[in-house]
Amino acid sequence: MTQKSEEKYPLLSHIDSPADLRQLSVNQLPEVCADIRRFLIDALSSNPGHFASGMGAVEITVALHYVFNTPYDRIVWDVGHQAYGHKLLTGRRDRFDTNRKFGGLSGFPNPAESEYDTFSAGHASNSISAALGMAIASALKNESPRRNVVAVIGDASISGGLAFEGLNNAANVKNNLLIVLNDNDMSIDRNVGSLNGYLAHLTTSRRYNNLRYKVYRVLRKLHLVNERQKGVIQRFNNSLKTLFSGQQNIFEGLNIRYFGPFDGHDVERLVSVLTDIKDMEGPRILHICTTKGKGFEPAEKDPATWHAPGKFDPETGERVKPAPGPHPPKYQDVFGETITELAKANDKIIGITAAMPSGTSMSIMQKEMPERVFDVGISEGHAVTFAGGLAKEGWQPFCAIYSSFLQRGYDHIIHDVAIQHLPVTFCIDRAGLVGEDGVTHHGCYDLAYLRTIPGMIIASPSNEMMMRNLLFTAQEANHGPFAIRYPRGSGKNVDWRQEMQSMPIGKGRKVCDGNDVAVISIGPICYDVQQAVARAAEKGVSAAHYDMIFLKPIDEQLLKEVAEKGCNIVTVEDASIIGGLGSAVIEWLNDHGYSRKVTRLGIPDNFVAQGTVAELRKLCGFDVDAIEKSIIQVIK
Amino acid sequence: MTQKSEEKYPLLSHIDSPADLRQLSVNQLPEVCADIRRFLIDALSSNPGHFASGMGAVEITVALHYVFNTPYDRIVWDVGHQAYGHKLLTGRRDRFDTNRKFGGLSGFPNPAESEYDTFSAGHASNSISAALGMAIASALKNESPRRNVVAVIGDASISGGLAFEGLNNAANVKNNLLIVLNDNDMSIDRNVGSLNGYLAHLTTSRRYNNLRYKVYRVLRKLHLVNERQKGVIQRFNNSLKTLFSGQQNIFEGLNIRYFGPFDGHDVERLVSVLTDIKDMEGPRILHICTTKGKGFEPAEKDPATWHAPGKFDPETGERVKPAPGPHPPKYQDVFGETITELAKANDKIIGITAAMPSGTSMSIMQKEMPERVFDVGISEGHAVTFAGGLAKEGWQPFCAIYSSFLQRGYDHIIHDVAIQHLPVTFCIDRAGLVGEDGVTHHGCYDLAYLRTIPGMIIASPSNEMMMRNLLFTAQEANHGPFAIRYPRGSGKNVDWRQEMQSMPIGKGRKVCDGNDVAVISIGPICYDVQQAVARAAEKGVSAAHYDMIFLKPIDEQLLKEVAEKGCNIVTVEDASIIGGLGSAVIEWLNDHGYSRKVTRLGIPDNFVAQGTVAELRKLCGFDVDAIEKSIIQVIK
Repeated sequence: MTQKSEEKYPLLSHIDSPADLRQLSVNQLPEVCADIRRFLIDALSSNPGHFASGMGAVEITVALHYVFNTPYDRIVWDVGHQAYGHKLLTGRRDRFDTNRKFGGLSGFPNPAESEYDTFSAGHASNSISAALGMAIASALKNESPRRNVVAVIGDASISGGLAFEGLNNAANVKNNLLIVLNDNDMSIDRNVGSLNGYLAHLTTSRRYNNLRYKVYRVLRKLHLVNERQKGVIQRFNNSLKTLFSGQQNIFEGLNIRYFGPFDGHDVERLVSVLTDIKDMEGPRILHICTTKGKGFEPAEKDPATWHAPGKFDPETGERVKPAPGPHPPKYQDVFGETITELAKANDKIIGITAAMPSGTSMSIMQKEMPERVFDVGISEGHAVTFAGGLAKEGWQPFCAIYSSFLQRGYDHIIHDVAIQHLPVTFCIDRAGLVGEDGVTHHGCYDLAYLRTIPGMIIASPSNEMMMRNLLFTAQEANHGPFAIRYPRGSGKNVDWRQEMQSMPIGKGRKVCDGNDVAVISIGPICYDVQQAVARAAEKGVSAAHYDMIFLKPIDEQLLKEVAEKGCNIVTVEDASIIGGLGSAVIEWLNDHGYSRKVTRLGIPDNFVAQGTVAELRKLCGFDVDAIEKSIIQVIK
Repeated sequence: MTQKSEEKYPLLSHIDSPADLRQLSVNQLPEVCADIRRFLIDALSSNPGHFASGMGAVEITVALHYVFNTPYDRIVWDVGHQAYGHKLLTGRRDRFDTNRKFGGLSGFPNPAESEYDTFSAGHASNSISAALGMAIASALKNESPRRNVVAVIGDASISGGLAFEGLNNAANVKNNLLIVLNDNDMSIDRNVGSLNGYLAHLTTSRRYNNLRYKVYRVLRKLHLVNERQKGVIQRFNNSLKTLFSGQQNIFEGLNIRYFGPFDGHDVERLVSVLTDIKDMEGPRILHICTTKGKGFEPAEKDPATWHAPGKFDPETGERVKPAPGPHPPKYQDVFGETITELAKANDKIIGITAAMPSGTSMSIMQKEMPERVFDVGISEGHAVTFAGGLAKEGWQPFCAIYSSFLQRGYDHIIHDVAIQHLPVTFCIDRAGLVGEDGVTHHGCYDLAYLRTIPGMIIASPSNEMMMRNLLFTAQEANHGPFAIRYPRGSGKNVDWRQEMQSMPIGKGRKVCDGNDVAVISIGPICYDVQQAVARAAEKGVSAAHYDMIFLKPIDEQLLKEVAEKGCNIVTVEDASIIGGLGSAVIEWLNDHGYSRKVTRLGIPDNFVAQGTVAELRKLCGFDVDAIEKSIIQVIK
């Protein structure tokens, strides 16, 4: 470590693994937490990432690694925004400046990166199921010493159906899973008052256990309960807490022992509680309350903005502003602004988001007409089926969901929307390579998994104006299920707010003509293709360029025109090359008796890690250079 | 109606719509129920279908249509096994002999069939989300008279994550959804004793409401609660019930008013309770307890067998037995027997089923080694992620899930298994056309949605012996995610229990050689192709036939051999022609510079209704005749 590092982070700079942490005394832990916070502020101010979640989870991270024998004991982080502190404590402090970078550390726990990262994280709500599998794996092996498994899940993630399925299963099989519920939702009145504190104290104390047993004995004498009623003591305890506390009693209903809520920023208390409940038998839940952005005032005040704030000044908290002047909009904002505009004119439009109002910019419509926007929480499956119910009764729901998260709603699209040919529009954000969020977040498969569904319309705009036109078209009539996929990040046009026009379903367009080769693209990758085509032209290669716009129904007239040219074809898509545009083109050519060589560019058949979109496109072979190269190669 | 019908079903024979039912007096309803039961027994004894669920739901069906103004009010049936009585009351009595038949009534509620069938049913747990969408649709329209929406869901379905997501959302938005929980799980100690009955009575009575308020006022005086604590009265009521009752208090935790449990076979009581709670505001849940197979003794005694019993004697309940002699096994039994055999030799194997131990024959292993089989309930997503957790810790989980239900686990396969290259084997039952269960149950898309996932091995055996060999191969080493898809129904071989052999991953086989055309198939459709090839040979056409076995990795040597023949190609798969075998073959040929015309046979790009598998294959154009025709046509 450097001298500077030792000065700035006196304790943290000596912790190269949790074993080092466990050498410290409990009263040194607050200082470790302070070191981690300073480190995170310094690091993230210059190399942006997720900020507020990690700041809120510092104490529980330190307490878990202090009390549990990691990596023998397993910590499963849900989503993993919160796991930066965990990375710092587990030997990755010196590489933290590569966080989310190409070839660097993943922004989420990643088993390929460290033995301390026990399971894939990125899509919410999976930690309980995965950790339950691990806990049962350990129980089946009768391991000695007992291997503890801890799932750490936020209050948003635990609302997902998958988390409920995990909880529901956890109480039915023998295991010692500990679930830490990291509750940082400030919008809920948590009643963290004296009564709650008292009950929380009671819960882990002998005195309370004795009291419970005494009361139980009295009730039994009065014949109000009998011992053969399975679980009656559990229920009695639960009902007592339900009566006085403000928490929902779901966990207790599921017969999982509940402890909490505790102050998630009192690291010494957390160590003491965790030590108390660590060796208990059976599934348990520990409820802690934390503050997002804890320890950095601007983030505490506005945790939504500070979820992923970009670069900022570590002293003042001033965020680095974009250069002045008009900028092309993010695609999500084109969606958000346009859907709001459309909804004003068409009172059948309903907005649906699964816990991503800001991320999808559905917040814009939500702000203007809150009664017509439903944020259903982290529950993509429900979002889709719920949209189906609304559509069945004559509404026109627009479901804005990230491409990779929509995988959770695949069955629901088929079963609850497409079979009934209901007019639900899927606004698929973050389609294609997303960049720094990496392997779990790339939207690679939507074209393939949607194309196989009968009656689906699948479109992707190549620019912001077309994005508006597609949204306009989707709401004009009952077209059945309609998917519009668009990428993360910004478009190219400052003057994108143009009057909307209807687009013919299933019609593509010719961007430019040419004779030596035909390039077919879909989506905003169109711009890169145009550049490549221009460069090829400079080298004497005349390429025609077609923008498919609709993958399904596919424009057969356009494909016929391409095929009749007789030249080779290059397809370019920001999606898996299996099953998407390239496959559709090859299938059509085959089915119609054309024999043309098609070179398919897109995301290859392997998992792609993090990096900038530019780096990743280069890696995958569909950046401008690669497209140009393909264009020139195929005519040879 | 016929004279006979009027004699046998004196009341039912006059009910052509719920309006007719509502003309009767309440005390005639038990007789209507008796008529429905006799009708179902008569009809299902000769035209098999789902039996026990429908018999258990007779009273709630009658009560709902009696109390609610259907079709203006909406009833959303979950899954819909239970909805036969509903079909009889809603104008489909005379066509009920066509139930589950080609061109006849669907075995599930189907909006295309009747305005009384409000939403797609077939996949469990969707009713609450869909009904919530409808309830909110109505609330947004401010409809007058108020339109009531009722979801009817079983106790198994409500354990699915989607149902939880629906419940979780239901309490957060203004709506008047009524959820009827049809609880027929006899394995759970429901404590339906006098105390429960008393509480149930109290719940809907004024006296109880008054008592609740009085107790609340006392507590408030004692400063144990204060009015500003949101929901405190609700919680107090809940805690009182939690204390004394045996029910899990999940619904109350979610702030949904709970009523029950009531006897689901007391139709007059149900009418009275439904009338009481019908016009209340806000989401409510009515918990009723029913007996599967109610009214038919053999079914009450063995509801699992009588879930779908096949033909039986309506008087004695004796089920029609198959002809004596050895029969080829069902594929599910080949799976069940083989996995048990393998698990005895390999102690790393774990069996996982999502509420389908009998349907997948995982029950065979469950019986022999219950500690190594996990039935996680209706929660396909959790099943997959849980398997991921087990696999991460060194076990070899075999997840047996129906193809169309596995759509619910799509994201989990990618995120929780494939990204980490974990050795989970997906035993995908009911792949391809399933026959009578129809549109929601066909396993059309698995080849397409799995093929796009990096690192997946996807195989389909063409016979029972190969099925055993694939299972054997999957557990031999850590191959990463491994999918084995196989159809509903029986194989062809009586002597299938042969010694298992390892199969080379990604290797297909040549079934027979030929020169005029090459046919490539995957799965047991192999037999049909063989027949078609033989018939074509009689007509002088020499067809080579290849059995791909593995869709991924695909056998490139085999494809090269096929391509080098220079003849046209026919691909045959019991799966969607978009994205599966045919697409993979075309892609490979294109990528390797071969120009061969490929005719793709399989399930076309539209939804397929019910019928026998033979009828549906004919309809889809891949029965033996159609395959033969294609073989002969492509050489022309």
